[in-house]
Amino acid sequence: MKPVNIGILGATGVVGQEMMKILAERDFPVASLRPIASAHSAGKKLSFQGEEVTIVEATDSAFDGLDIVLGAAENDIAERFAPAIVKAGATFVDNSSAFRLDPKVPLVVPEINPEDVKWNSGIISNPNCTTIITMIAVNALAKESPITSIIASSYQAASGAGKAGLDELKAEAMAYADGTSVEPKAFAYQLAFNVIPQIGGEQYMGYTSEEMKMQNEGRKILHLPEMNVSCTCVRVPVFRSHSISVVLRTEKKISVERARELIANAPGAKLVDDLKNKQYPMPLDTSDQDIVFVGRIREDLTDPNGLALWCCGDQIRKGAATNTVQIAELLLK
Amino acid sequence: MKPVNIGILGATGVVGQEMMKILAERDFPVASLRPIASAHSAGKKLSFQGEEVTIVEATDSAFDGLDIVLGAAENDIAERFAPAIVKAGATFVDNSSAFRLDPKVPLVVPEINPEDVKWNSGIISNPNCTTIITMIAVNALAKESPITSIIASSYQAASGAGKAGLDELKAEAMAYADGTSVEPKAFAYQLAFNVIPQIGGEQYMGYTSEEMKMQNEGRKILHLPEMNVSCTCVRVPVFRSHSISVVLRTEKKISVERARELIANAPGAKLVDDLKNKQYPMPLDTSDQDIVFVGRIREDLTDPNGLALWCCGDQIRKGAATNTVQIAELLLK
Repeated sequence: MKPVNIGILGATGVVGQEMMKILAERDFPVASLRPIASAHSAGKKLSFQGEEVTIVEATDSAFDGLDIVLGAAENDIAERFAPAIVKAGATFVDNSSAFRLDPKVPLVVPEINPEDVKWNSGIISNPNCTTIITMIAVNALAKESPITSIIASSYQAASGAGKAGLDELKAEAMAYADGTSVEPKAFAYQLAFNVIPQIGGEQYMGYTSEEMKMQNEGRKILHLPEMNVSCTCVRVPVFRSHSISVVLRTEKKISVERARELIANAPGAKLVDDLKNKQYPMPLDTSDQDIVFVGRIREDLTDPNGLALWCCGDQIRKGAATNTVQIAELLLK
Repeated sequence: MKPVNIGILGATGVVGQEMMKILAERDFPVASLRPIASAHSAGKKLSFQGEEVTIVEATDSAFDGLDIVLGAAENDIAERFAPAIVKAGATFVDNSSAFRLDPKVPLVVPEINPEDVKWNSGIISNPNCTTIITMIAVNALAKESPITSIIASSYQAASGAGKAGLDELKAEAMAYADGTSVEPKAFAYQLAFNVIPQIGGEQYMGYTSEEMKMQNEGRKILHLPEMNVSCTCVRVPVFRSHSISVVLRTEKKISVERARELIANAPGAKLVDDLKNKQYPMPLDTSDQDIVFVGRIREDLTDPNGLALWCCGDQIRKGAATNTVQIAELLLK
């Protein structure tokens, strides 16, 4: 593959930093790497594959000469610079939620719908982290028989709120040990020794924006526009792996044995399902990896076409940075 | 009410200690209090309402002269001593799971099925903690229209594993701050900064014993023998409040507004449901109390007769000790 010129918009955040690490790890054919961030960080040096790279300020001219821009910034920044990126002739692979539901923008999980990158017109969106992890877990079941509905409850890590979230959980843990406490800023309430049943603002019928992503993005990724999802998103005091408790219904019944077989062979997924020997996915075992771990597969006792399962995956990697780099890899093919 | 002679079997554990505290708090008419425990603790003194009481060794003759014995011991101890308690003429209000599904034993949540105490023949069981909290949250809905099914995912506190569980989570948090770690004993894996999707051993079709309690005990408490429940029980690094994410279906549709009204007026429950103002139940706000807090009430997007909600309650109090003392109060009426 011919090396390409890569930009990272929002290079100084947790996801941007992880993208640089993953580009190097995966031997992505990088001709040049340009970290792009706010004026505050511009001029600072970062290390990439043993060489120094200088952070460039995000301006309309910052993208000239780039082939692919990986987006690790918030929605407002992504919206602000998308036109300039496209105008510069680069493809914008964006991790924000700004364009995910735009019908002109593919929303891609490379293990599920790689073909969708082909119809992009300059922007490709990377899905929500909890949605990616859940969809990798259920995709092989959806291919066996279409999923009609999902009921999900999440156990989401602090890393979903970026470096501020990680730092705050750590500070709260240290304060607990000292017998003190810290004022919550990244989260609305103390997260250590607590769980917080709100991620995102209210969006639809009492569901939060984060909760609606699993339905709206999941439909687009799985090509199942009728799939209904009731999701409850909950922040838990875990550093970087999200877990999701899922009950799903399929048009035709899939047995537990067949579900295990399908998931064991599903790309990007690993079956860890042996309750007798206390083997199932857990955040501490699944962090810093790109695989989605799936276990606790059993029949839904409330519906003959239902299955229950439990999945975990690293929020920063497969939930964000790795998936974005994988989309960029598809563009090179 | 005429004061009665009370025994506490398993008086030295977290729940036994909480029972003593709650008897005092609620001005339960105690003529005498007899803490009963293993030979190891026998002879030691405990304080009750400013007086010293001496721990008696659990033997068949330990229950003579008692009117009510509150059980805060494990199943094997409850099974071992139940015949002696009944023979002594006392009523055994047992918090273990040993007799809960016995058709001759009532299983009682006083706010839901107080009438069931009447048909006891010496033993009354106190339900599982997660089940009590969930049933208090959904009872008013079940009375409006029978619940046909529940899908639940729990976020269960360390206190469910007793003092050893509480101590282990604390030790893990302190070790984290020191940059060290401790060997898990109370839990199979490190709980701090992790979640563990197994509570109890495998019981039925891949579900754990803890998970099946919500269906089997829930049916008996709500008098809904056909209600089906798919439950996923997960331990989270929280000290003493359990949280449960619930999706339930009723025979007839209940609107969100009506559900809020019903729950706001339900005995033992408190509605805290204002997402816009970030008001919902959380473990840190709901510990050391006897109320079950309910919020995040919304329509289930996957079923027209479904409702989603989130509830929290203190595991040691309403989940165990308070409910047991409340059952004893019913016996006095």
